Amino acid sequence: MRLLKKTIDYIPNDIHVIGDAKRGDIGNTSKAYAKAVFEEFGCDSVTVSPYMGSDSIKPFLSYNDKMVFLLCLTSNPGSNDFEKLKYNEKNLYEHVLEKSSKWGTSEQLGYVVGATHSSELKNVREQAPDRYFLIPGVGAQGGNPAEVMKSNMNGPAIINSSRGIIYAGGDSKDFAEKSRQAAMDLRNKLINTKNCKK
Amino acid sequence: MRLLKKTIDYIPNDIHVIGDAKRGDIGNTSKAYAKAVFEEFGCDSVTVSPYMGSDSIKPFLSYNDKMVFLLCLTSNPGSNDFEKLKYNEKNLYEHVLEKSSKWGTSEQLGYVVGATHSSELKNVREQAPDRYFLIPGVGAQGGNPAEVMKSNMNGPAIINSSRGIIYAGGDSKDFAEKSRQAAMDLRNKLINTKNCKK
Repeated sequence: MRLLKKTIDYIPNDIHVIGDAKRGDIGNTSKAYAKAVFEEFGCDSVTVSPYMGSDSIKPFLSYNDKMVFLLCLTSNPGSNDFEKLKYNEKNLYEHVLEKSSKWGTSEQLGYVVGATHSSELKNVREQAPDRYFLIPGVGAQGGNPAEVMKSNMNGPAIINSSRGIIYAGGDSKDFAEKSRQAAMDLRNKLINTKNCKK
Repeated sequence: MRLLKKTIDYIPNDIHVIGDAKRGDIGNTSKAYAKAVFEEFGCDSVTVSPYMGSDSIKPFLSYNDKMVFLLCLTSNPGSNDFEKLKYNEKNLYEHVLEKSSKWGTSEQLGYVVGATHSSELKNVREQAPDRYFLIPGVGAQGGNPAEVMKSNMNGPAIINSSRGIIYAGGDSKDFAEKSRQAAMDLRNKLINTKNCKK
């Protein structure tokens, strides 16, 4: 915990820090998790799992200056198991989107939508044009940056690569330089796609 | 983290320690969470959320001498939001039960089924007679111990009260004695119900 706090403290204040904690528990416990993530660690946003429903999410939404990203359609293979279960013409992740959108404004509540599902990303973006999306999966998980940009249709989004950047240099001594290069490469791919569309 | 580890270290080795962490993330991250819960903290079992599917659960199941309790039907009000969504004649929590039962044996994989849903508890027990259930909700959340015992039909289970016991004494100096009394009261209620059935 101390190492985690120290790591976060190194990050300059003008950089948005996402606590990718995927929490979700009964209200009393979620309240304590929210306090830890936002007050103790000073994160600007948090990822939360929808399975347990509204009272497991609401304590995170009670912080006015913070943001919640609710898991909607995740980037991993297991997203096929339950998130894509279809009933009444809609997948579970679409039910999550529809029901939870009443729990918070677009300033408070956004969604995790994986870069590995570009057609579904477009579908979710059409249903939620104003919501912030946290889009993981363009790095080690193999999502295509150009496809993500097209599917996201200029909606507000944070496109995230973790392992693709932090492990770019492996165990080598120039890991910092290689991570910088990987971050710039990804940024350029994303920007170029955007420019092509204009 | 150090306080948590210290607390767990106080617990004698013959007492089963459940890490009620409700984790669930992409495989790579779940692997690290499993290592933390089982190796760092030495828990005997862990609670895990099913939303992200099989690859988010499997790293926890790779420890042969440990146990995983998958969230099935939780004890909180928000369980109505998604867990009880019905499609193809089954609720989401029943789909979770059915699909996940192929991921691990009854020695490895059990389920969290809340005490606050006694009719559904009976239904889940009928579908999974041999699985261990972790049954929270008989304490502060108001589940009825006698109903739980009847609905569980003598299946293998851990019936858990947390706040009902640890906060029994409030801020008073005899908090330890009051917690002991609350634990014994609950135990007696559970045992008496069991005896009545014989």
